[in-house]
Amino acid sequence: MTATDRRRRTYGELPNYPEGSFFRNRAELHAAGVHLPLMAGISGSASEAADSIILSGGYEDDEDHGDVIVYTGQGGNDPATKKQVYDQTLVRGNLALVRNWMEGVPVRVVRGARHDSPHSPAVGYSYDGLYRVEDCWHDVGRSGFRIWRFRLRKIGQESSRLAFRVREEKDRYGTEMPERSHVSISRIIRTTAVAAKIKQMHDCVCQVCGTRLETPAGPYAEAAHIRPLGTPHNGPDTLDNLLCLCPNDHLLFDMGALTVEDDLTITGTRRKLRTVPGHEINAAYLRYHREHYG
Amino acid sequence: MTATDRRRRTYGELPNYPEGSFFRNRAELHAAGVHLPLMAGISGSASEAADSIILSGGYEDDEDHGDVIVYTGQGGNDPATKKQVYDQTLVRGNLALVRNWMEGVPVRVVRGARHDSPHSPAVGYSYDGLYRVEDCWHDVGRSGFRIWRFRLRKIGQESSRLAFRVREEKDRYGTEMPERSHVSISRIIRTTAVAAKIKQMHDCVCQVCGTRLETPAGPYAEAAHIRPLGTPHNGPDTLDNLLCLCPNDHLLFDMGALTVEDDLTITGTRRKLRTVPGHEINAAYLRYHREHYG
Repeated sequence: MTATDRRRRTYGELPNYPEGSFFRNRAELHAAGVHLPLMAGISGSASEAADSIILSGGYEDDEDHGDVIVYTGQGGNDPATKKQVYDQTLVRGNLALVRNWMEGVPVRVVRGARHDSPHSPAVGYSYDGLYRVEDCWHDVGRSGFRIWRFRLRKIGQESSRLAFRVREEKDRYGTEMPERSHVSISRIIRTTAVAAKIKQMHDCVCQVCGTRLETPAGPYAEAAHIRPLGTPHNGPDTLDNLLCLCPNDHLLFDMGALTVEDDLTITGTRRKLRTVPGHEINAAYLRYHREHYG
Repeated sequence: MTATDRRRRTYGELPNYPEGSFFRNRAELHAAGVHLPLMAGISGSASEAADSIILSGGYEDDEDHGDVIVYTGQGGNDPATKKQVYDQTLVRGNLALVRNWMEGVPVRVVRGARHDSPHSPAVGYSYDGLYRVEDCWHDVGRSGFRIWRFRLRKIGQESSRLAFRVREEKDRYGTEMPERSHVSISRIIRTTAVAAKIKQMHDCVCQVCGTRLETPAGPYAEAAHIRPLGTPHNGPDTLDNLLCLCPNDHLLFDMGALTVEDDLTITGTRRKLRTVPGHEINAAYLRYHREHYG
């Protein structure tokens, strides 16, 4: 057991270390509690979400766009050459970052000087703020081995707009009300113009389970992009890249717990996706989803 | 049929009328297409989401906090006294605004000089930007009649951060890819520290239907606040105000399609909420939810 395991992880901003705080080395990051492990890039475990990650130039497949980071999971990496030498699996720190996504736990991001990016400091390490894990999938990296990838988005304005202040008061039962409630986002359901069309075509019936959620304002369903929008997937916002799903199956689809074969069979079952005339699904997008999320 | 019915509603920003555009009267708003109806406050119908609303001092229960507006639905109002004289129902413009919520369609907000707020213009009308409908419920207004209320939140930074740019390219099938995809938010699942606790206590089993969604990273559930956080509900972030639900039942609960009686019976059924030792639910919060969302 190393020193890093004995200290408890602290999530979120640390009062004494605002964004932009500088650290000379990893021992200082450790002592401050900003990033506990002295070697590992992800501070987290299979049973606990990550509290911090470090970008230190160790992984050839990292992408740093500033507010958006495509971060490579841990494992399979040769520290000498920085190349992947075997497949990464969904364990330890990688599983921790999936928990951040599922539970909406924000993660501190630290950049080191050796990380090749215009956003990294010239020397030492810089604490660069809180990020949200908003997507995770696997891919084949530059060296031909499987890597896990996480798209992180900086929490800024957005979070302060969404965090509610709950009034300090006692309710009629004398319960102390929280002075302030820290609310974070665990999931955002996005929609597009084409999404409305697909829901209408399917009359809000889920293509996987046939559920149609009835509400006082009419039926509800969600449109799921098969090959996701946004970097680096850049799937199109077109009918042949969309499914009409209930929220439960949408979550399972996004998490890769549910995939669909080229012939529309739901993987591992004998059931097929429900279809309606005029809604042709592009098998290439189903394949992309299976290959990166399945 | 009036002139307003013949013109088609246009959603979102209008290129010629940026935020802050000034209009002398409602005829000018109509001619510009910014707000089509000459009398009604909500431009929308039972079958179509609203494209614009107006705050013009007609409703005594409106609240204007600038970026957050608690807007009163239409109907039951005496234009002479501005008082409610009968109950509002979920029809026409009110139903339209619920559709905005369900489908994530943003609505233009116009403020008039007669609207009593520091945010309203001194004369005429001002187009004040796009808002998202993020909550809807009913209440008893100042005059003792039922009113529908909608919490609107201004889309600013947040939306530009969340809107993806999709690269302009042709995919291998020759389909034209959209130059830019307009993505809007239909739903945000928030989470809090207490939420993680409630999911753990229930081992992610839905208290309504018993579903436990299995994913490669472990089980998934959502924590639903019974009396919502945030203005004007100000429910507490405490265990006795939370339920552990699957995404489908969370949606139904938030929409008021699912309510729970004081004795934990699910309204209209003989089934009861599943419970676990140590998770006591406060009946007052269930009552608040029934009274405002049911």
